[in-house]
Amino acid sequence: MRAYQVQEGASLARAWKAVELPLPEVGPGEVLIRIRAVSLNFRDLIVARGLYRGMTKPDCIPTSDGAGEIEAVAPDVTGFSVGDRVVAAYSQSWIEGPPRDHHKMSTLGGPIDGMLSEYVVLNTKGVVHIPDTLSYEEAATLPCAAVTAWHALMAAPFPPTPGSSVLTLGSGGVSTFAIQFGKAAGLRVIATTGCEDKMNRLYNLGADAVINYRELPDWPHQVRELTRGEGVDQVVEVGGPATLTQSLEAVKLGGKISLIGVVAGLEHDFNPMQILQRNARVQGITVGPMSMLKEVLRFMEVHHVRPVIDRHYGFDQASRALERLQAGAHIGKIVIQL
Amino acid sequence: MRAYQVQEGASLARAWKAVELPLPEVGPGEVLIRIRAVSLNFRDLIVARGLYRGMTKPDCIPTSDGAGEIEAVAPDVTGFSVGDRVVAAYSQSWIEGPPRDHHKMSTLGGPIDGMLSEYVVLNTKGVVHIPDTLSYEEAATLPCAAVTAWHALMAAPFPPTPGSSVLTLGSGGVSTFAIQFGKAAGLRVIATTGCEDKMNRLYNLGADAVINYRELPDWPHQVRELTRGEGVDQVVEVGGPATLTQSLEAVKLGGKISLIGVVAGLEHDFNPMQILQRNARVQGITVGPMSMLKEVLRFMEVHHVRPVIDRHYGFDQASRALERLQAGAHIGKIVIQL
Amino acid sequence: MRAYQVQEGASLARAWKAVELPLPEVGPGEVLIRIRAVSLNFRDLIVARGLYRGMTKPDCIPTSDGAGEIEAVAPDVTGFSVGDRVVAAYSQSWIEGPPRDHHKMSTLGGPIDGMLSEYVVLNTKGVVHIPDTLSYEEAATLPCAAVTAWHALMAAPFPPTPGSSVLTLGSGGVSTFAIQFGKAAGLRVIATTGCEDKMNRLYNLGADAVINYRELPDWPHQVRELTRGEGVDQVVEVGGPATLTQSLEAVKLGGKISLIGVVAGLEHDFNPMQILQRNARVQGITVGPMSMLKEVLRFMEVHHVRPVIDRHYGFDQASRALERLQAGAHIGKIVIQL
Amino acid sequence: MRAYQVQEGASLARAWKAVELPLPEVGPGEVLIRIRAVSLNFRDLIVARGLYRGMTKPDCIPTSDGAGEIEAVAPDVTGFSVGDRVVAAYSQSWIEGPPRDHHKMSTLGGPIDGMLSEYVVLNTKGVVHIPDTLSYEEAATLPCAAVTAWHALMAAPFPPTPGSSVLTLGSGGVSTFAIQFGKAAGLRVIATTGCEDKMNRLYNLGADAVINYRELPDWPHQVRELTRGEGVDQVVEVGGPATLTQSLEAVKLGGKISLIGVVAGLEHDFNPMQILQRNARVQGITVGPMSMLKEVLRFMEVHHVRPVIDRHYGFDQASRALERLQAGAHIGKIVIQL
Repeated sequence: MRAYQVQEGASLARAWKAVELPLPEVGPGEVLIRIRAVSLNFRDLIVARGLYRGMTKPDCIPTSDGAGEIEAVAPDVTGFSVGDRVVAAYSQSWIEGPPRDHHKMSTLGGPIDGMLSEYVVLNTKGVVHIPDTLSYEEAATLPCAAVTAWHALMAAPFPPTPGSSVLTLGSGGVSTFAIQFGKAAGLRVIATTGCEDKMNRLYNLGADAVINYRELPDWPHQVRELTRGEGVDQVVEVGGPATLTQSLEAVKLGGKISLIGVVAGLEHDFNPMQILQRNARVQGITVGPMSMLKEVLRFMEVHHVRPVIDRHYGFDQASRALERLQAGAHIGKIVIQL
Repeated sequence: MRAYQVQEGASLARAWKAVELPLPEVGPGEVLIRIRAVSLNFRDLIVARGLYRGMTKPDCIPTSDGAGEIEAVAPDVTGFSVGDRVVAAYSQSWIEGPPRDHHKMSTLGGPIDGMLSEYVVLNTKGVVHIPDTLSYEEAATLPCAAVTAWHALMAAPFPPTPGSSVLTLGSGGVSTFAIQFGKAAGLRVIATTGCEDKMNRLYNLGADAVINYRELPDWPHQVRELTRGEGVDQVVEVGGPATLTQSLEAVKLGGKISLIGVVAGLEHDFNPMQILQRNARVQGITVGPMSMLKEVLRFMEVHHVRPVIDRHYGFDQASRALERLQAGAHIGKIVIQL
Repeated sequence: MRAYQVQEGASLARAWKAVELPLPEVGPGEVLIRIRAVSLNFRDLIVARGLYRGMTKPDCIPTSDGAGEIEAVAPDVTGFSVGDRVVAAYSQSWIEGPPRDHHKMSTLGGPIDGMLSEYVVLNTKGVVHIPDTLSYEEAATLPCAAVTAWHALMAAPFPPTPGSSVLTLGSGGVSTFAIQFGKAAGLRVIATTGCEDKMNRLYNLGADAVINYRELPDWPHQVRELTRGEGVDQVVEVGGPATLTQSLEAVKLGGKISLIGVVAGLEHDFNPMQILQRNARVQGITVGPMSMLKEVLRFMEVHHVRPVIDRHYGFDQASRALERLQAGAHIGKIVIQL
Repeated sequence: MRAYQVQEGASLARAWKAVELPLPEVGPGEVLIRIRAVSLNFRDLIVARGLYRGMTKPDCIPTSDGAGEIEAVAPDVTGFSVGDRVVAAYSQSWIEGPPRDHHKMSTLGGPIDGMLSEYVVLNTKGVVHIPDTLSYEEAATLPCAAVTAWHALMAAPFPPTPGSSVLTLGSGGVSTFAIQFGKAAGLRVIATTGCEDKMNRLYNLGADAVINYRELPDWPHQVRELTRGEGVDQVVEVGGPATLTQSLEAVKLGGKISLIGVVAGLEHDFNPMQILQRNARVQGITVGPMSMLKEVLRFMEVHHVRPVIDRHYGFDQASRALERLQAGAHIGKIVIQL
């Protein structure tokens, strides 16, 4: 079968090397999946650059997010049959409950082999059926970005009150899911972007208000104006240290901030007295368990939410997909079809 | 000013007696409200029949739910001005937090004087501004039925996961609010009715599925069929003992049942082993605090939800409104305009 | 190896039949355990009587609760070694999270083979290490009764506020654990018993107050007296329908009742209006997941809590242990040593 | 009556000026309290230095924490009588529920007049009865420091699981309460101190382990060693930015950090990526509502917890008490008796 492997130390254009591998065999509890679509995440870029220290093995098959069709099942498997359409969970061992250190050791695409391969063998605990309303490409966008957005927005111990407000930053994968999920779950969504062109796209996704942060440097003030002077109930903070200070100015007293990403760089420090002064609740989020992927799939089925797909690439164009991710001009998810 | 008072021992047609009372005076912290609309609840019928044992005083002004315009404010009042549009909380002392016994002693329309009067004086702690999107009549429908539906559906310690399912029973005030709130908050709503004519109304309110329980005596089975055999995540149980057994058959393992009403009678016993076998969580709900009324108003403003009003009556026709409630043929709320 | 098997249709004295079985083999992910101690639960009696309808297989090895020493491990097993002291979870598939229907299909002692055997093979997911502070006999008392008490008292969505009060009923296994756990977790414990002799035992376990319900038929009134007239914050209700009415009289407005057992019979109906009037939160509890067993073990280690053991029996005396359980005169847990 | 007033711009020794004021009069809903004891908090020092920007009025009576005996009640007051022993809530308007901006405007000792006065008039909503088990001096230590510790340790949405672990820092008022509360609520308490002399005091308060952070610069490693390599479940972080980095190294994946104080200075920045990497939940805490003060009083009554009092001063020695606070050598609370 054809697959890609990560070449540490190579340039980005050669970081994913096309290889021919033997077809993997199905062991107890496992299924063989013919992969049909894969989506890319910022983490795949970090792994490709060799910056995912100590977490990957040599020649690891990249990407965590993939969907496909079951082609074989072990004799002891129940609940899954040949022909079933399935998508895999980001961490194959995180079934439900709080995060634990060992979950990181079973993340697809590093440290364990990922989905950018014609065939993949997984334990059934780590895969779930795709509802009829979603294509393979759409399902493949969910395991990392959509589950992260869901965890940030919806999960205990901070479930949102319907009618409460959420602030999203930019138009990456997590933020576009957060806008869509927030809207369909009855929240009031305030989105920011630095790009005039993208404002309409964000309105169309369901944002109730969109702020251009380049034109309005004191945008946290604008957010407070939109919320009776109080600030939003929660922020899905994908900007990292660079925007955290502003997010804390935009959130209400006692509000929630979900810290997710590293898109805006790792170099900024900030003064934690701000957290104290706003009585804020800040939670660090890294994706989520299989139980949340199931909640996402159920929600998308009930509400006919469709993921935002930026562009499709063929299996042979995988490296170009990676370059598109690196360029950062995409809206929503980049998908590779097999 | 004109008002009504409850006449215990009278027939229903005479239970509300029109009277002329002196205009009440505003004390510290209080406002004088010109009432514009009142809505009726099942409890008003119980009070009118003299069945609200020991909880009412002689000549109590009836009804808990009303909205109007502020005509005077005490000198020490802040945050409210003459001309403001306001609606009052069901229990004037339940501001936030869990229920306490003393909250029952400050319920409008019994034991303390209610809203069926041209003017009412209340402490500002017990009133809240009406958003521009709602009329007086619409706002007047909320304090009891909408807050009850909200408490049942949305409140801690059982907030719903968006995409999860809820079962509602019938087309009374609480149930119609539950359908509307559930839909706008991203839940999947399964509604029941015993009346073919009402099925379309319930679909139009937002129900994803409607079941006629008269035609389908084993309707809990149908509910399970609609939910992959598992049962719904929660039930807003307004039927009381009579339908609780069936609700427990329709709810998933570990699911939630909010016990609210007495519409279907008080006479049925049931076997609590069913609660154990379903690992169910059953909560008894009696309206809710001011903080939930504020959440309801914010939600209705964000989502432009409009309450279902059955019929309007004039102030002189108050007794006919009460008879309409007694007859039980209404859908949604019965309103008296002043 | 020697073991017992359930003989459906036999008298209680012959319900457990001693047999000689081949030593089971270890498969992938599994360990071989030399069982050292087993404890009995009321459910074992129901299974022995053949009343656990449709849930058991012929010749099932009885009892869910057992502890022992690992004698062999499969090559792929990590985290467990020969010589480790372990105890098994009640449901071998319920690792964490809410209850699901399929968990019932992997309960030890019916439907799957249980622990009353010299050797047992289990997947490592279903076993956990015993802290040094607990003996095999003590650890063997925990999987069903202690986890049930923990789930009722401590678990989300209803964790207790330290300093709040709990009412326990009688001196069975779940209730004695509830007294001990409640006390060590900073709750105020009010216990009942029908037996004057047992009052001191309950005080010694940590009860702050003990009420003899035979001498005080209106004992709920006494409970309210002990709690400023308000009632207790929660009840661990092991009596089933027979005592639920009184528990609802003893609980505060908005309080919690955990419905557990069937000790007092299944035949009583009750009027659910009581739940509504007390705004009570009633949850049906059936044991709990592995994650709670781990919490119980950690708690017992930190606080040096020792389970109450009624009496020890030898492996040959297993049927006499079962008869002791049937007689109902025990305090705490009945243990069989191997 | 005699009282003190804050003199902005004065040296610390003259920051509190003794004055003679007229006896305040009781208005509707209010009681006159003869103050018997006051305790000091770090905030009182900030106010005295004039650093509580824009939050105080000229001549404000200092200190938030005080207890005394009721000497007069308004005619409309219920539930309080002359002779009752009471203590006042930190914010007189924060009764229950989440923090709101306006609560800060009714904090005793700035912006509104505080407790360092022979007599104080307060609304009954802001006072609560003292249990018999506590003296005036002990009760006066609770409104700020004990409620803060309680909020951090015990409150939703992060209530601790009994048997879980907590890390406290140093021996100030909040930390000593956290040790005592944690122990009595069944937590495992790991305390730090920089002073060998204080180690025994912390053990005696209930700490299960005490670490001298001066002798063990990598003390977070030691904390992990004490918790199976995982880290503690929660940290009561009173050190502010200076110690937050180390607290994040000492907390388990997904653990909780309550940010409280400013004792160790405001000048340190830190990198919020640490919050993300630990999937930590960081909450900023500023005291808490009256409902938590009531929980604290109930807990102290049930468990006979006695506050740690550093030293008592007479009313005339108030400035010396303030200097003792400034010096920072105290353990527990500094009290002024009247």
